[in-house]
Amino acid sequence: MRLASRLDNLGTETAFAVAAAAADWKSRGNEVFPFHLGDLDFPLADHIVEAMNSAIADGKTGYCPGPGIPELRAALAEDIGSRRGMTFGPEHVTVMTGGKPVITKFLQAVMNPGDEVLYPNPGFPIYESQIEYLGGVGKAYRYLPTDDGFAIDLDQVRDAITDRTVAIIYNDLQNPISAESTDAEREAIAALAQEHDLWVLSDEAYFEMRYEGGSTSIASLPGMAERTCILYTFSKKFAMTGSRLGCAVAPTELGRVFSTMNTNDESCTTHYVQWAGIAALQGTQQPVADMLDTLRGRRDAACEIVNSTPGMSVETPRSTFYLFPDVTEAIGLVGADGLADFAQQALHATGVSFCTRNHFGRPQPGEDRSYIRFAYSGLSEDKIRRGLGDLRDWIGSHA
Amino acid sequence: MRLASRLDNLGTETAFAVAAAAADWKSRGNEVFPFHLGDLDFPLADHIVEAMNSAIADGKTGYCPGPGIPELRAALAEDIGSRRGMTFGPEHVTVMTGGKPVITKFLQAVMNPGDEVLYPNPGFPIYESQIEYLGGVGKAYRYLPTDDGFAIDLDQVRDAITDRTVAIIYNDLQNPISAESTDAEREAIAALAQEHDLWVLSDEAYFEMRYEGGSTSIASLPGMAERTCILYTFSKKFAMTGSRLGCAVAPTELGRVFSTMNTNDESCTTHYVQWAGIAALQGTQQPVADMLDTLRGRRDAACEIVNSTPGMSVETPRSTFYLFPDVTEAIGLVGADGLADFAQQALHATGVSFCTRNHFGRPQPGEDRSYIRFAYSGLSEDKIRRGLGDLRDWIGSHA
Repeated sequence: MRLASRLDNLGTETAFAVAAAAADWKSRGNEVFPFHLGDLDFPLADHIVEAMNSAIADGKTGYCPGPGIPELRAALAEDIGSRRGMTFGPEHVTVMTGGKPVITKFLQAVMNPGDEVLYPNPGFPIYESQIEYLGGVGKAYRYLPTDDGFAIDLDQVRDAITDRTVAIIYNDLQNPISAESTDAEREAIAALAQEHDLWVLSDEAYFEMRYEGGSTSIASLPGMAERTCILYTFSKKFAMTGSRLGCAVAPTELGRVFSTMNTNDESCTTHYVQWAGIAALQGTQQPVADMLDTLRGRRDAACEIVNSTPGMSVETPRSTFYLFPDVTEAIGLVGADGLADFAQQALHATGVSFCTRNHFGRPQPGEDRSYIRFAYSGLSEDKIRRGLGDLRDWIGSHA
Repeated sequence: MRLASRLDNLGTETAFAVAAAAADWKSRGNEVFPFHLGDLDFPLADHIVEAMNSAIADGKTGYCPGPGIPELRAALAEDIGSRRGMTFGPEHVTVMTGGKPVITKFLQAVMNPGDEVLYPNPGFPIYESQIEYLGGVGKAYRYLPTDDGFAIDLDQVRDAITDRTVAIIYNDLQNPISAESTDAEREAIAALAQEHDLWVLSDEAYFEMRYEGGSTSIASLPGMAERTCILYTFSKKFAMTGSRLGCAVAPTELGRVFSTMNTNDESCTTHYVQWAGIAALQGTQQPVADMLDTLRGRRDAACEIVNSTPGMSVETPRSTFYLFPDVTEAIGLVGADGLADFAQQALHATGVSFCTRNHFGRPQPGEDRSYIRFAYSGLSEDKIRRGLGDLRDWIGSHA
C-alpha cells in the first residue's frame, strides 16, 4: 500500500538508537550508566498526585475545553507572566500534551511550504524534523565555544535571513549544549526578529532549571510579546515528563489557532492531569528546590570528573541538566573512528551510554571539534561518579 | 503577524457553538438539558484509578516509548484482536492520546495533497476538517433512511471513486446517526476498497457500545487487514473521555510511521494513564455492563418520547448513544426557519440543547429531510424524561 510523500521528510529523535544500544548491552548482563536520556529519576510530588485524585473523585474525568480548563490557563498565565515580568491572560495560554506539541503547532501556524525558519544546530532534533516535514526550509545556526560556554554565531544568523524567512526558533538555556544567552545576545536576536518581522518560538523548557542567576524571556523584551510564542512545559521543573502537560503562551491570534488545532488533533489534554498541574504551580515548591539541589550536586560531580578526564573538557553550565564536553582529544586517545565509534567503544568498555553531537542535527560545514552530551538528570550522584569515573579510567589507560 | 495559508482549510467541531449557547442560557438562570454533548456522566471505575495510582507509586511517571508501553500494546492487541476474530501483535498497535489523533495521523500517512478521500456525511466533523487541512479533497458519501435506520448510499460511494481516491473513512456504528452496516453493506465497502486499492480508516469508537447483537470489524474481512487502520478508543466503553487514551491498530508499515509521528508530536501518551488502560482492559468488566444497562434505559426512554412527539420520529438504534430523529415536520409545526432556528427556539422554550445535522458536515445537494442529534449519554433517565417531555409539550402546543 502506498504511503504519502510527506513522510520522506519526517525526521525523528535518533537518540532512540542510543537507548536501544544501551538496553541491548544491559540485557547481556552489563551495568549501564544511562547518560543518554533527558529524563528525571524523581517521583511525582505527593501534593500533585493528591490533586489529581481529588479531581478524579470530583468527576473531572470527561472532556474539557480544547485550549485547557480555565483554572489552569489562568494559573499558567499568572505564573509564567510573573516570572518573566510580563502580564498574560488565560486567552494567551493554550494547554497541550507537553511542550513538544508547541513545536509542530507553531510551525503549522506560521510557516508555509517553502518558507525558511532558523533553528539552533546542535539543538533539539524535532525542530529540524518538523520544519522539513511541514515543507519548510530549515536554516541551521551554530554556537561557538567561548571562555564561559557557548555563544550563538550571530553573524551566521544575520547572513541566513532572507525574504523567505518567517521565524526563528530560539532555545535560551539550551539543549543539548547548556548555553545561555547574555543580555546582549538575546537583544540581538530580538532586534533581528523585529527588523525582519519574524515570529519567534522561544523554547523555555529549562527556564527554571537553573542553579544560579535568573532567567530572562526574549518575550519580555520591548516589541517581542506580539511576535513570540513561549514553549512551556511541566516536564522538567516538576519531574512530570510522563504526565504530558505543557502549554503555549502566545499572542491571541496564535492561541485561537492552537485551540482549533487541539480540537482537531486530540480534543483536549488529559482532564485530571490539568488539575494536577494547578497543584504543581500553586502548591509547595519545596520538591522543586530539593530537586534542583540534587541536580546541582550531580552537575558538580559530573563536571569535576569530566574535567579531570584526559582529552575531555567542559565549562560548568548554570542551567539545564546537560553537559556538552569537547571530546576531540579523547577520541584521538582511544583511537576511535569518530563520534559513533567513540560512543560504542565507551559503552562496551565502561557501560556509559550517551548521545553525541550528531543526535542534535546534521553537522554543519567547518565543524572541527567533537562533542558529546551527558544528561545527569536520571542517575544518582553515586552512579555518576562510578560511571564517569570508569570512563575516565578507560580513556586514561590510553593516554 | 502573518499566519500560514493552510489555516484557511482548518475546520473544527462547530458543536462548540451549541455548548456555548447552552452555557449562556444556563448562566441566565435556566435549566439546561445538555443533549448536545457526546460525553458520559459515569465515574472512572475504582480499579482503573487504583491501577493508575499504583503505576505512579511504582515510578511510572517518566517518558515511555513513543508507540506506547509494551504491556499496553500487547493487551490491546489481544483484546482488540480477540473481539474481532483477528490476530494482532503489539507491533500493530500504536498508543495515542485518544482515538482522535488516529484521524490526522492516518491521513498524514496515506494522503498526498490533491488526493481524494471518501468520508461519511453526516459524520464526525474532524474527518472533513483534517482531509481539507492536509490538502486532500474530501468526497462526502451519504446515508439514506431505511425501515430500520439508515444505510450507506453505495451507489454514491461507487460513483465518487476516481483515480485520485486513496482512502475511505468508514464509521460502522455511526456518529451522529447510529447507523450500522448489514453484512452485505460492509462487504460492499470492503470490495470497493480492494477493487480500487484503497486504504480504509475504520472508526470503531462505538464497536462495543451496543445493546444487542454483535459488532463486526471491516478489518476482519478477507483481504482487509493489510489495508485497514482501526481507530480504537477507551473513551466511550470505559467512560474515559477525559483520560485521552486510544490507539491505532494497523499494518506495521503504518504503525512505524505513527510511532515516528508520536515522537515528533507529543513524545508519548501519559505514562501512568497507559497502566490504567491495562486495568480497564483486563480488570472487571462489570462497570462496562452496568453502564450499557443504564444507557439502554436512557435510549428506550428517549426513543419513546421522541416517537410520541408530533413531527418527530426515529428508529431505535442498537448501538452508540445517539438518536438522529427526523424533525422535518416538527420544524414546520413550530414555524422555525430551519435547523438552527429550531434549535435556538427549543433551547429557549425548554432548555433542551442539541446539535443538528449541520454540525456533522456540510449538507449535500438534494437533502430534503431535517435531522437533529440527541446524545443521551450525559443525562440521567429522569432528566431525559423531563427535558424531552418538555420538548414534546412545546412542539405539541403548536400542533
